[in-house]
Amino acid sequence: MAVNMYDVAYEVEKAIRESAEFKNLRNMYDEVNADESAKTMFENFRNIQLNLQQKQMMGEDISQEEVEQAQKMVALVQQHATISKLMEAEQRMSMTITELNKIIMAPLEELYGSLENK
Amino acid sequence: MAVNMYDVAYEVEKAIRESAEFKNLRNMYDEVNADESAKTMFENFRNIQLNLQQKQMMGEDISQEEVEQAQKMVALVQQHATISKLMEAEQRMSMTITELNKIIMAPLEELYGSLENK
Ligand SMILES: [Ca+2]
Ligand SMILES: [Ca+2]
Repeated sequence: MAVNMYDVAYEVEKAIRESAEFKNLRNMYDEVNADESAKTMFENFRNIQLNLQQKQMMGEDISQEEVEQAQKMVALVQQHATISKLMEAEQRMSMTITELNKIIMAPLEELYGSLENK
Repeated sequence: MAVNMYDVAYEVEKAIRESAEFKNLRNMYDEVNADESAKTMFENFRNIQLNLQQKQMMGEDISQEEVEQAQKMVALVQQHATISKLMEAEQRMSMTITELNKIIMAPLEELYGSLENK
């Protein structure tokens, strides 16, 4: 009998939870959250980014002022040691998740890829 | 030492490949591809859907004519036994993938969820 997909998915979940990448990410979040001014700055940054992403998705215009505000915010958080470490941790975790997804989705990629080339 | 995330991800990949859901999906694709008229009808359906999705994402207007054309196409493929079986197989596979993703993404969900509630 084939291995149960859900059983091995739970093993991936556990491996992520115990990985250095995830533990580092959680520690960085805890550090940012423990610092009220860092937390507020990071939340502002996230909200601005989310707002711009939503406008882009909806095909709405983004003003020059909004672009400048976002750029200033990026510069600000990059200079903040704790936040920039959190952002690096997020990026590493995100790259790992992308890799894991590529591996897991290979059967479907192959199926759809083979269709397109016919 | 923690279990390697990539090793267990490959186990999920293998389990998907050997699952009844995936084998059924592949068989249904093969059946549709073996039937030139079914294949053409399915490709037309996919192209119309993709086109509408892209317009929606870009915030472009969708005409009444386009809506009607899409609705006619849906009715057409639903009446086609082989294509409708393929679409059911796709939906089952898609639900399985959604479930697997929920399991695997739980650590990150928890992390981000806990932040939002603070
Ligand atoms: Ca052909
Ligand atoms: Ca608070």
